[in-house]
Amino acid sequence: MKVKKNRLEAFSDGVIAIIITIMVLELAVPAGHDFEDLMPLLPILIGYVLSFVFISIYWMNHHRLFEIVDTVDAKILWGNLNFLFWISLIPFATAWLGENVDSRAPVIFYSVIILIAGLSYKLLVKLVARSQADDKRIINAFFRDKKGIYGILVNAVAVLSAFIHPNIAIFILFVLAVIDIAPDKRATIAYAALLAEREKSPIK
Amino acid sequence: MKVKKNRLEAFSDGVIAIIITIMVLELAVPAGHDFEDLMPLLPILIGYVLSFVFISIYWMNHHRLFEIVDTVDAKILWGNLNFLFWISLIPFATAWLGENVDSRAPVIFYSVIILIAGLSYKLLVKLVARSQADDKRIINAFFRDKKGIYGILVNAVAVLSAFIHPNIAIFILFVLAVIDIAPDKRATIAYAALLAEREKSPIK
Amino acid sequence: MKVKKNRLEAFSDGVIAIIITIMVLELAVPAGHDFEDLMPLLPILIGYVLSFVFISIYWMNHHRLFEIVDTVDAKILWGNLNFLFWISLIPFATAWLGENVDSRAPVIFYSVIILIAGLSYKLLVKLVARSQADDKRIINAFFRDKKGIYGILVNAVAVLSAFIHPNIAIFILFVLAVIDIAPDKRATIAYAALLAEREKSPIK
Amino acid sequence: MKVKKNRLEAFSDGVIAIIITIMVLELAVPAGHDFEDLMPLLPILIGYVLSFVFISIYWMNHHRLFEIVDTVDAKILWGNLNFLFWISLIPFATAWLGENVDSRAPVIFYSVIILIAGLSYKLLVKLVARSQADDKRIINAFFRDKKGIYGILVNAVAVLSAFIHPNIAIFILFVLAVIDIAPDKRATIAYAALLAEREKSPIK
Repeated sequence: MKVKKNRLEAFSDGVIAIIITIMVLELAVPAGHDFEDLMPLLPILIGYVLSFVFISIYWMNHHRLFEIVDTVDAKILWGNLNFLFWISLIPFATAWLGENVDSRAPVIFYSVIILIAGLSYKLLVKLVARSQADDKRIINAFFRDKKGIYGILVNAVAVLSAFIHPNIAIFILFVLAVIDIAPDKRATIAYAALLAEREKSPIK
Repeated sequence: MKVKKNRLEAFSDGVIAIIITIMVLELAVPAGHDFEDLMPLLPILIGYVLSFVFISIYWMNHHRLFEIVDTVDAKILWGNLNFLFWISLIPFATAWLGENVDSRAPVIFYSVIILIAGLSYKLLVKLVARSQADDKRIINAFFRDKKGIYGILVNAVAVLSAFIHPNIAIFILFVLAVIDIAPDKRATIAYAALLAEREKSPIK
Repeated sequence: MKVKKNRLEAFSDGVIAIIITIMVLELAVPAGHDFEDLMPLLPILIGYVLSFVFISIYWMNHHRLFEIVDTVDAKILWGNLNFLFWISLIPFATAWLGENVDSRAPVIFYSVIILIAGLSYKLLVKLVARSQADDKRIINAFFRDKKGIYGILVNAVAVLSAFIHPNIAIFILFVLAVIDIAPDKRATIAYAALLAEREKSPIK
Repeated sequence: MKVKKNRLEAFSDGVIAIIITIMVLELAVPAGHDFEDLMPLLPILIGYVLSFVFISIYWMNHHRLFEIVDTVDAKILWGNLNFLFWISLIPFATAWLGENVDSRAPVIFYSVIILIAGLSYKLLVKLVARSQADDKRIINAFFRDKKGIYGILVNAVAVLSAFIHPNIAIFILFVLAVIDIAPDKRATIAYAALLAEREKSPIK
């Protein structure tokens, strides 16, 4: 029982837009009116930048994933809601991180939320690919993406390294963000080829 | 006097996306920086998960309901706004519940809001079905759905059981959520058949 | 220099959806866990209901207004932003009203904001009608609407009556909401006729 | 590897709608219930009006920019997210400004954020124009716009003047807003011509 994808996209866009924007509410107005009063906000801003990049990456990947399908079934709808649930916890994790960048628990908690969000996105990709199982092109386009698996591993390393020192974990998370920004060449080529083929023979 | 449904969908998507996301603002940053400081948030998180599931279910049903119509009249617009009003109270009810999971009044209040939201959704379905009265297929697709009526009953039981012990009510609400997630097979088949027929003979 | 109307609609839907939803953030979690702890929230809820209805009406009228045009010019874009600015002050006015339903200043302030929002909407209608000046049907559909002018007058009476007693003004505002909900029959017929004609001869 | 622009528009509309609306949350409910209790909010309201106008202008320009393209590549997606990041800091900068209109640091900070947002928008325009490099019409439509460069200069003057007196900077920012509202005639003509040509020969 498949329905059109449009509203899934619109709803996801809305939720992701709100998630990425409400984080800025954490930046409380400084008590004083000098530049030095901005200083205590610096770690909060670092957390904000990191989360802004991660959520941006998810939005871009989500955008590309649903570009190639026309309809979605109930499993995909639930997989998407599961994904949205986990990224909806990012503002909370970011707020706790921002006020405690040098503490173990908040950094571990943040890294774990990012990791679970990543895994729930992987699950969503699988559900989409399975719903189009007759089309091997999709599986190729999204599973040639070795960088995605490296990303999960780097994220797991960030979680573990936080036990040694939280700042190491934050550094590794920034490395992860940079890795995620640069697209995997082979996956990009496979994806572009898929889009081009689709133009000729669309699949509903 | 019918207008196109698109903006009703877009507006509803926006409102529902905001409702589901602002609940996360209730998760206040913990006072300390240890994992044990997360403990007091656990009941709030339970409330959040419950409400996230309920609102998700409403969004999915809403999505399916408006998939089958092309235009909406004033009665449907008002029925939709009535429905949005009641679910807009869910974040407030969730916040009160989350801070008082062991108290009678907040649990009763929460269960009642969920119940009224459910009834206002039923009303919306009726208004949509009535606007397409010449099309018996719609009535079949949405009113064969016996599970919906069971849902209302289970919800009413949750309200009553809260008078015995609030935790029983919360347990029943989780049962309700699980019932709602699993689709009613007969309704799903009727709905899929309706969508397929519509492809051939659309009704404006 | 005209651009397509779609994004104006999407942006307006987003802003109106947020305005209508953030008002619920005013409903602070009660201090206690008994039903009587909800009592102090009752006037806030009254303000919320009133504003929810007013914003709903604006959204519905906005929906109908832009249903009939395909493109918008810079004047309409600015007229729309002016309208959005004034309704964006409704949550603030509602919050002040809700905490002071028996005081003169908050009730006058609220009534004035509603009045200015109403006038800015009238201005927007004029800008849309002017941009389609060659089409007398639009002017008929939106300016036969005598109820709109009555609404402005009733609103002005509400402002003035608040000087006598704030509760009278709140009562009149509820009357205004009821008047606005019931559509003007002549305007509705003219509008339906316009939509029907448009189907045959659309105007860009 | 280009994807359709629709979701970029929907996501940007969502983020900009939220940014423009959450600023109103800064208008805290006055402590008392007299008109004089509104007075302390006046500077906050001034900041709100200023930011509302700036964000409105960005939204309108963004609307026009993406009207002329059908697909976007990864660079444009990142350029857009970069732009959204900077305007997402406007509510914070506005809140600090609103509580300290007579202090140097908040005014400088606000002017700098507006300036960086302006530069990031220029960068986005360049990325869009570059992606359509074979189409000189776009470059003409957006780079004949001398007013945009004047705007950057006036903004820079606002930053510097804040070192003399913060109120001068606020005055210059209002001048900047007025300049930005009035469209550059030559650019408008070039843009209208581009849209007209596009109707005949669209470019994907």
